[in-house]
Amino acid sequence: MSANPYDTDLDRNPANHQPLTPLTFLERAALVFPEHTAIVHGALRRSYAEFYARSRQLASALAQQAIGRGDTVSAVLANTPAMLECHYGVPMCGAVLHSVNTRLDASVIAFQLDHAMSKVVIVDREFMPLVQEALALATVKPLIIQYNDPEFSEAEIQTDLQDYDAFLATGDPDFDWLMPLDEWDAISINYTSGTTGDPKGVVSHHRGAYLLAQGNALTTSMAKHAVYLWTLPMFHCNGWCFPWTLSAIIGTHVCLRQVRAEPIWTALAEEGVTHLCGAPIVMSLMISAPEAQKRPLSQTVQVFTAAAPPPEKLLADMKTAGFDVTHLYGLTETYGPAVVNDWHQDWSNLPAAEQAALKSRQGVRYLPLEGLDVLIPETMQPVPRDGKTMGEVMFRGNVVMKGYFRNPAATQAAFAGGWFHSGDLGVRHADGYIQLKDRSKDIIISGGENISSIEVEEALYRHPAVETVAVVAMPHEKWGETPCAFVELVGGQTVDAAVLRAWCKEQLASYKVPGQFVFMPIPRTSTGKIQKFVLREHAKELA
Amino acid sequence: MSANPYDTDLDRNPANHQPLTPLTFLERAALVFPEHTAIVHGALRRSYAEFYARSRQLASALAQQAIGRGDTVSAVLANTPAMLECHYGVPMCGAVLHSVNTRLDASVIAFQLDHAMSKVVIVDREFMPLVQEALALATVKPLIIQYNDPEFSEAEIQTDLQDYDAFLATGDPDFDWLMPLDEWDAISINYTSGTTGDPKGVVSHHRGAYLLAQGNALTTSMAKHAVYLWTLPMFHCNGWCFPWTLSAIIGTHVCLRQVRAEPIWTALAEEGVTHLCGAPIVMSLMISAPEAQKRPLSQTVQVFTAAAPPPEKLLADMKTAGFDVTHLYGLTETYGPAVVNDWHQDWSNLPAAEQAALKSRQGVRYLPLEGLDVLIPETMQPVPRDGKTMGEVMFRGNVVMKGYFRNPAATQAAFAGGWFHSGDLGVRHADGYIQLKDRSKDIIISGGENISSIEVEEALYRHPAVETVAVVAMPHEKWGETPCAFVELVGGQTVDAAVLRAWCKEQLASYKVPGQFVFMPIPRTSTGKIQKFVLREHAKELA
Repeated sequence: MSANPYDTDLDRNPANHQPLTPLTFLERAALVFPEHTAIVHGALRRSYAEFYARSRQLASALAQQAIGRGDTVSAVLANTPAMLECHYGVPMCGAVLHSVNTRLDASVIAFQLDHAMSKVVIVDREFMPLVQEALALATVKPLIIQYNDPEFSEAEIQTDLQDYDAFLATGDPDFDWLMPLDEWDAISINYTSGTTGDPKGVVSHHRGAYLLAQGNALTTSMAKHAVYLWTLPMFHCNGWCFPWTLSAIIGTHVCLRQVRAEPIWTALAEEGVTHLCGAPIVMSLMISAPEAQKRPLSQTVQVFTAAAPPPEKLLADMKTAGFDVTHLYGLTETYGPAVVNDWHQDWSNLPAAEQAALKSRQGVRYLPLEGLDVLIPETMQPVPRDGKTMGEVMFRGNVVMKGYFRNPAATQAAFAGGWFHSGDLGVRHADGYIQLKDRSKDIIISGGENISSIEVEEALYRHPAVETVAVVAMPHEKWGETPCAFVELVGGQTVDAAVLRAWCKEQLASYKVPGQFVFMPIPRTSTGKIQKFVLREHAKELA
Repeated sequence: MSANPYDTDLDRNPANHQPLTPLTFLERAALVFPEHTAIVHGALRRSYAEFYARSRQLASALAQQAIGRGDTVSAVLANTPAMLECHYGVPMCGAVLHSVNTRLDASVIAFQLDHAMSKVVIVDREFMPLVQEALALATVKPLIIQYNDPEFSEAEIQTDLQDYDAFLATGDPDFDWLMPLDEWDAISINYTSGTTGDPKGVVSHHRGAYLLAQGNALTTSMAKHAVYLWTLPMFHCNGWCFPWTLSAIIGTHVCLRQVRAEPIWTALAEEGVTHLCGAPIVMSLMISAPEAQKRPLSQTVQVFTAAAPPPEKLLADMKTAGFDVTHLYGLTETYGPAVVNDWHQDWSNLPAAEQAALKSRQGVRYLPLEGLDVLIPETMQPVPRDGKTMGEVMFRGNVVMKGYFRNPAATQAAFAGGWFHSGDLGVRHADGYIQLKDRSKDIIISGGENISSIEVEEALYRHPAVETVAVVAMPHEKWGETPCAFVELVGGQTVDAAVLRAWCKEQLASYKVPGQFVFMPIPRTSTGKIQKFVLREHAKELA
């Protein structure tokens, strides 16, 4: 076979090939719109020129501390300007950003700092006691830098610590920042909360961050100069890559230290917010705010929600209040959202219940994700598109992580067969849209039949007295397992197990009806996820 | 130095790395919105399911003819559905698409077919005589496929030729199309018209096509379901990558066989067109249409123009007519537009003349272009940002071509010093925006002073009697060169050389005033570019 002439004398060179990295988005924004407001934080307004200069100062100051390629810089920060600067300044010196969930226990943070071999930790003053407790448990001895957010005045300033702004001042605002050597270089590490076992460090690369950041804008039709409100914690998969998306479209970040209804409504009205992200709880918070806190809006706000399907009533309330809600899905391993419930215009003419049912599906692949399917792990064959046959949701493409840090066994297992195994169970509908049915470890196997805990939960959620419900497997002598339902009731409601059992019998096949109903507060992780492993332990004791 | 832990056991694999290619955009569009109208052509409506199936059929039919990786398939087509199918079907069998400018002479087409080693030529019936003339001159003996566009009924159908639809029917609509082996694989070849010497074959790769296609949507804030009118020839740098952009945003292509005012206005009104591209002549055509042909529009239409700065009056007329005009710039070597006059909202408050002056600048880099600068070729140093000092406009990044086909010397020269040398001369303004002043070969050197032919042309364009003007160097015994102006007057106008000379003296330094004014029709290339090399020859004779 002769050589392909289209591969002859047509090689890569610096003129026609550069590593893909979202860092170039900020460079461009600062060149083209230096005066445009990049960041709003309380009374503070920072332009793109300032945002870029400060990010370069951070990179320069870190480089002066001999921080560079392959080093980890940890950030324990709220949704503040410093957190945005870390998303650029840390990789601009070649280092890898490790954003820490501020709701974690000190012991888990200590594990992360050690495992990531952290060299520097940038800490909001509010979380300094937590970090100091963690460092007492950890082996690493990182440089500590304290960020004194002007919007936080509650704790005393420890003056013996390096101040963030003073640290930045040691850096050069014209620093000749480092492009990645290769777009495959790591840009960040994020630890999964992991309901069992040690947390795993998900390593993301510049290429994927570039592509998902653009994918966000394209998928959500975010236009030039969009205004984005930070209701989603940036420590969640780097804020789903939105810290980078906004620079691509020369938008404005509106920071938010605390997710409370009043500052949200104020920002929506006064900053002209066009987009925000969050779990359904964020929407509930907005909708259930006292009327005095709500504000009339002249713009339609696009809301992107993930983590759980938005309930029908909430969707209706949001629509009435002038919001447009899109359902996304993804994992830390996919840079945040990699699946979108891409809405068909004619669906908007359907009855509300049908719309909610369609909206509850996770959907289809993001543009920069090349493959999304529901496969039988044993055979790696796709399930039929019948909306019923369950398989494992799997991803393939350029917005899938580099792998788990210092954990080749977990990496290999996750990528077995050339697909990323999400651990989520789902079905595929006739139109190709996928819908989650459960985490694989949350499935209940009763008498050889698979029971989706989500299906049982959905039936219970339809009962007006139920506020929150979690269904797990309970050991059963005869059937192996049977569902056990943990329930929180709406305030003032007093239904008992018999009522809910009767309700379930109307809605579900009898083998799916929970054997027990337990009324108690439901334990949650620091990110608000229900801790099913705790409930499973509890169910074992009840069996 | 120890190994970087972020590069250890974290390699590429099929789950986390796939070649970037715009072909996946169409696959996704057909999955997610199979019923959405992808293509409108006269009475014809094709859905995304049909568009994808037909593209796969084309790929399959070509593969059955042993066409594959490294092979060239030429298309001599108008802006028709077949041309869109070629943009997917040809690369889906691994081959490289060679779109031919239908206005070229047979001898030039013959050169291209031979140089590209074309294996198949897909020809619109209108251009069959031209192609047959070319093939009589060419060495290659490609398979000829004739496209019988239902919107074209003028020429007789040659029934001895393979019909395009019959050829497609031999292919499998479920064909397992070929992803590129590497995103660096060629997707297309386009020959530059080349005012001197042989045409050069610009090779583009899948990676660049993917990135520029997305860049178009991001740069121009094209939202989901945009409707795009094909006023720009698709044989121009693959229609600036818009055949791929539209699939990314699930938009609708409105084909247009001929660029005439009436079908343009009809499409704008009846198809709800939101976006179109073209040289300023397209806008002139729309604005100067008889009032009876114009239609009221309920939408604002985004118009992207390139090739020449839009004149002030045309901008004002377009604004009044409800269009929003953006000025782009690029070359075949940069996949089409790679520079955008990114508009600042506050500029819209300036007087019209100032706005036109700002709009006439070419602007700043597209998001997927990593570098744009004006450099002195001898030193590769940037010019000062003074709006005056001329240098050569240079590009660097992922939307720069792979190189020139079978022409390593030209490729090396174009990429000297790690930048792509555009051959265009320009300046950089204080705000970083670039502005073209001339092609390097069009500069006039008089008494050691550089004279920008564009500056002289702009002065003459401001005279109300001047319709078109082209200024070139004329040999001069004393000064070396002096400007010579070729002028076409507005119909009915009768100014003479003395009037224009006096006008120029008011506007320009005296050494820039043309030594001669010649009133004659100005020769143009098949793509409407003024043929300055012809005028230079003419000026030599006049000297």
